[in-house]
Amino acid sequence: MTSYIECVPNFSEGRNAETIDAIEAAIASVKGTLILHSTRDADHNRSVITFAAPRDAVIEAALRAAAKAAELIDLTAHAGVHPRLGALDVLPFVPLGDATLAACIDIAHQAGERIWNELGIPVYFYEEAALRTDRAKLENVRRGQFEGLRDAALVDEGKRPDVGGPALHSTAGAVIVGARRFLIAYNINLRTTDLSLAKSIARRIRTSSGGLPALKALGLPLASRNLVQVSMNLTDFEETPLHVVYEEVRRLAAQQGVEIEESELIGLMPRKALEMTAAGFLKLKDFHTERVVENRIAMLLDERIPPHRYPN
Amino acid sequence: MTSYIECVPNFSEGRNAETIDAIEAAIASVKGTLILHSTRDADHNRSVITFAAPRDAVIEAALRAAAKAAELIDLTAHAGVHPRLGALDVLPFVPLGDATLAACIDIAHQAGERIWNELGIPVYFYEEAALRTDRAKLENVRRGQFEGLRDAALVDEGKRPDVGGPALHSTAGAVIVGARRFLIAYNINLRTTDLSLAKSIARRIRTSSGGLPALKALGLPLASRNLVQVSMNLTDFEETPLHVVYEEVRRLAAQQGVEIEESELIGLMPRKALEMTAAGFLKLKDFHTERVVENRIAMLLDERIPPHRYPN
Repeated sequence: MTSYIECVPNFSEGRNAETIDAIEAAIASVKGTLILHSTRDADHNRSVITFAAPRDAVIEAALRAAAKAAELIDLTAHAGVHPRLGALDVLPFVPLGDATLAACIDIAHQAGERIWNELGIPVYFYEEAALRTDRAKLENVRRGQFEGLRDAALVDEGKRPDVGGPALHSTAGAVIVGARRFLIAYNINLRTTDLSLAKSIARRIRTSSGGLPALKALGLPLASRNLVQVSMNLTDFEETPLHVVYEEVRRLAAQQGVEIEESELIGLMPRKALEMTAAGFLKLKDFHTERVVENRIAMLLDERIPPHRYPN
Repeated sequence: MTSYIECVPNFSEGRNAETIDAIEAAIASVKGTLILHSTRDADHNRSVITFAAPRDAVIEAALRAAAKAAELIDLTAHAGVHPRLGALDVLPFVPLGDATLAACIDIAHQAGERIWNELGIPVYFYEEAALRTDRAKLENVRRGQFEGLRDAALVDEGKRPDVGGPALHSTAGAVIVGARRFLIAYNINLRTTDLSLAKSIARRIRTSSGGLPALKALGLPLASRNLVQVSMNLTDFEETPLHVVYEEVRRLAAQQGVEIEESELIGLMPRKALEMTAAGFLKLKDFHTERVVENRIAMLLDERIPPHRYPN
């Protein structure tokens, strides 16, 4: 399989179905692009389209999405509870399969240059694609939103776009372009109604309070089911894999005599995360992806491995 | 991905590299065929080639392998410690990915007919492709081997080939053609030198002594590593998945205060087994294969699913 890049653009329109459909059609109009998922939220007045494409196609599709969003969305007439800076607000690129984060950083920078050069919309870079350390965090870049940054960018060097400007686009604002690892949204439901247990486990495991690396966690009630939930984002499943998270939550819950009822994946996960999970739980010696027969077939079809390499 | 069928022919030659190479080349000469693995055993005087191909190609490759084996192997001059009936001795077809066992039974029957019609070598059907219940087990079909069945097939109706004959081929014998599920060879190594523990766990878990379904198990010493091993074949990983086997061995060993050191996969496993293992250990709610982003991409490329079907 060709290396695919995932792209998860967020648009400042969650109510007008015609606009969102037109943006989705613009993305799908690029050959090789696959729409994986899309959500629209009326309260946030925001929509998220998840698509995947090989490298060149992903940039072209991002450009067409930015152009269509700028054409149809007017931020001066936009309101919603979610903060936003652009018509196309956030544009992260994510490596899938064999693709690297480095490739996605490069793609983000190329896409950013083209968005300014071809569409006249200035660009800020965030997360792994950030060119200034204070712009790694999205919330830092977006602080002040469209209405605030529109003025600040003109006078405050620290608020200037990374590419183009300094004036923002009058109706489309600016695009915040980035690269990041695949984010796995994952919840574990505990067989108890004791919310304080879910909250204390979340505190124990999350990175921000000294727990596991690359992990965000919250304790939430699931009142309708008489359960509580540890709701998580794994921001680097290679550093902190699913089975490590599961085992740690299981251990901490067991200390209070509570068992795991079930866990749930929100959205998608990469194949590598699944393979690491199975191999991790099984303490599997010498596991690698080509020990999976369908992976081996795909690799042979791609001529990525010689026929006899694997050890057994 | 096209549905692939795995084929695991066993040949009665494990010493003459030229012969084995020629057979492998005959298989690889069919377009679409991928050699996944091959082993040759001098003591058994036997070799096993594992290959995969789409349906039509797998039958053609099996035919060419049978023809080449008949051309180069003379059973009247063959000796080895492993029982055998044919130059191409055993020919099982195994479903991969979306392919079904029913398709493999049909493929086995078609291949068997062609082996007799085109090559004049009679065929017995075994396992899921067996036409007589007493032929389901390979050891029953092969009892008496080439030298015994060559005579018995002529006079004993119960020993007649299913297709062709009744006389066996004078130098190539007969081919035993079958269909079966993917067999996972899997070992768990225990952190103890107590062989009796490995043997008693094997007895507790194997199907033949009332344990888990579709599971063969033996206890073995791993003297060089100061460990013991529960060595297993999972003959239906959908009925008894890896995580169930692992958890049961872990539980029984823990009763004696012994931990699992590691486990190991011999050869390959299907992707579905890996997915079931990860989802099983995680108690993952509503997991299905298209929740894996690369699987989803492959399915979209195949147009097997519409873009928005999955629930989250």
